[in-house]
Amino acid sequence: GETVSVETTSVDPLPSWNEGKTKEAIMAFVEGVTREGSPTFVPQADRIATFDNDGNLWSEQPFYFQLQFAIDRVRAMASDHPEWKDQQPFKALLEGDMQALMAEGEPGLIKLVMASHAGMTTADFDASVKDWLERARHPRFDQPYNTLVYQPMLELLDYLRDNGFTTFIVSGGGIDFMRPWTEEVYGIPPHQVVGSSIKAEFDYNAGSPVIRKLPELDFIDDKAGKPVGIHKFIGKKPIFASGNSDGDLQMLQYTASNPKGAFMLYLHHTDAEREWAYDRDSHIGRLDKGLDEAREKGWTVIDMKTDWKVVYPFQTVE
Amino acid sequence: GETVSVETTSVDPLPSWNEGKTKEAIMAFVEGVTREGSPTFVPQADRIATFDNDGNLWSEQPFYFQLQFAIDRVRAMASDHPEWKDQQPFKALLEGDMQALMAEGEPGLIKLVMASHAGMTTADFDASVKDWLERARHPRFDQPYNTLVYQPMLELLDYLRDNGFTTFIVSGGGIDFMRPWTEEVYGIPPHQVVGSSIKAEFDYNAGSPVIRKLPELDFIDDKAGKPVGIHKFIGKKPIFASGNSDGDLQMLQYTASNPKGAFMLYLHHTDAEREWAYDRDSHIGRLDKGLDEAREKGWTVIDMKTDWKVVYPFQTVE
Ligand SMILES: [Ca+2]
Ligand SMILES: [Ca+2]
Repeated sequence: GETVSVETTSVDPLPSWNEGKTKEAIMAFVEGVTREGSPTFVPQADRIATFDNDGNLWSEQPFYFQLQFAIDRVRAMASDHPEWKDQQPFKALLEGDMQALMAEGEPGLIKLVMASHAGMTTADFDASVKDWLERARHPRFDQPYNTLVYQPMLELLDYLRDNGFTTFIVSGGGIDFMRPWTEEVYGIPPHQVVGSSIKAEFDYNAGSPVIRKLPELDFIDDKAGKPVGIHKFIGKKPIFASGNSDGDLQMLQYTASNPKGAFMLYLHHTDAEREWAYDRDSHIGRLDKGLDEAREKGWTVIDMKTDWKVVYPFQTVE
Repeated sequence: GETVSVETTSVDPLPSWNEGKTKEAIMAFVEGVTREGSPTFVPQADRIATFDNDGNLWSEQPFYFQLQFAIDRVRAMASDHPEWKDQQPFKALLEGDMQALMAEGEPGLIKLVMASHAGMTTADFDASVKDWLERARHPRFDQPYNTLVYQPMLELLDYLRDNGFTTFIVSGGGIDFMRPWTEEVYGIPPHQVVGSSIKAEFDYNAGSPVIRKLPELDFIDDKAGKPVGIHKFIGKKPIFASGNSDGDLQMLQYTASNPKGAFMLYLHHTDAEREWAYDRDSHIGRLDKGLDEAREKGWTVIDMKTDWKVVYPFQTVE
């Protein structure tokens, strides 16, 4: 906290951010929150910052990375499930027919998640996520999926923590899918990751206890579920919230109601060259109502193309 | 973490604990976990410690303090609910007939909790807990309920944190009932409190968003629910777990299975004079199977009467 403020006056804490009103707004907020005697000062214990993950800390195109994980899992498990050849959504998946797969909609996706995420111990699931991250490569960048994280957001997370903030992920993605790698990649430990979940049960397992994942939805941490998830897992209202889609709007509205004052941040994907450009019409990460409300209420909107010097760490030139 | 170890060699970090094998076992474990090069060294990020609350960090007699809160709430709300005069468990409660109230069993208690904990915003509930803690006095000690915390356990929490542990509460009690005061009293922030919960929903509320508590159970963080709650909220297996009843047994079993090694601690209420003495036959905080398993497996059992110099902070003589 306090000890770092000396350093941050001499070294740029956000070197991958171009100078401009976005960077200025972030730094002015942090300065106002941390400086003793400031009218907007907030005690360290209440400096809660929440970040959406998909399309906000890492990419989400051409579709959610967790869906690719589920697809790869189902493919690997298919030899043990001959019945899948005739059952949707497995049939479409195994035939590589993404259009037919998407036509199965949310019920189809839930079946995929249950088939690929349930019926095993949490330790085995954790290992399967780590194994997938080591082997799988993103089709466009030919890089492991968890290297497609945003360098400017990594700097922002560090900057906030250096200023006494506690940083949380609040994502619609699966909590058990994120936790195996968020500590190493984002510096966010598992207990500061909030996400969607399926139920689980304790099994004494003859003296070698395990937690088994069950094929039943527990909690969907999206849209109006995000403030509920924040209350449930964090128990304090954030003073800083960051997202990229309409699925984050309620989180930002909830944060904006903090009487201590708050900073609301949207990431607008405007960079088709270095990443992707999409907003109001996208099926993934749609940003429509949120963009209107951000403009109406004066929330800060990152323009990826102009605000970021670099997108991914592997594009950083020293 | 490391910086404090110098201090702890010269100043006793557990001054309210009598010398003996309980204190020695705790300190030997912490020393082995924290000393670089030790065969039992555990990295700081994995030093997860979980503590039961009722009867483990604060007292739970003559009955759970949260039940007294619910009773006081129901009494205060009774004038708005004339129908309660003829409905159990409210009738028994309003007539002060604790025996009849207890005869309503768990369904009766759940009705009390729903009537006193649901149908309001989380902010209003939070305020009602703080108000109760200011006004209510414990019948035996005539002190606010949240001063009936155990001085030796406060020292243990500090000692673990000074040695790089992250401390969590994992309680069967209501998560929203604990969070308003655990940070101030135990140094445990809301996001490190795991407990039982009822469901909640987001209400945009015409631009002043709130979370409303609903009359529906969400999660029971007791017995086999404790390891499930640990997985759900913490996402790592503890290396240190502390409880006082059979409701903690699965948490201790789960912790004992940590391949990094672990410390399991039971608090045995043996001090009728300074606190209460109860174990195998108690309706509240029964410790029966857990006591047997602790002896069988060599877990550490605190004998309150002999291991603790003082019980409550207000009994401390400087
Ligand atoms: Ca997103
Ligand atoms: Ca207990």
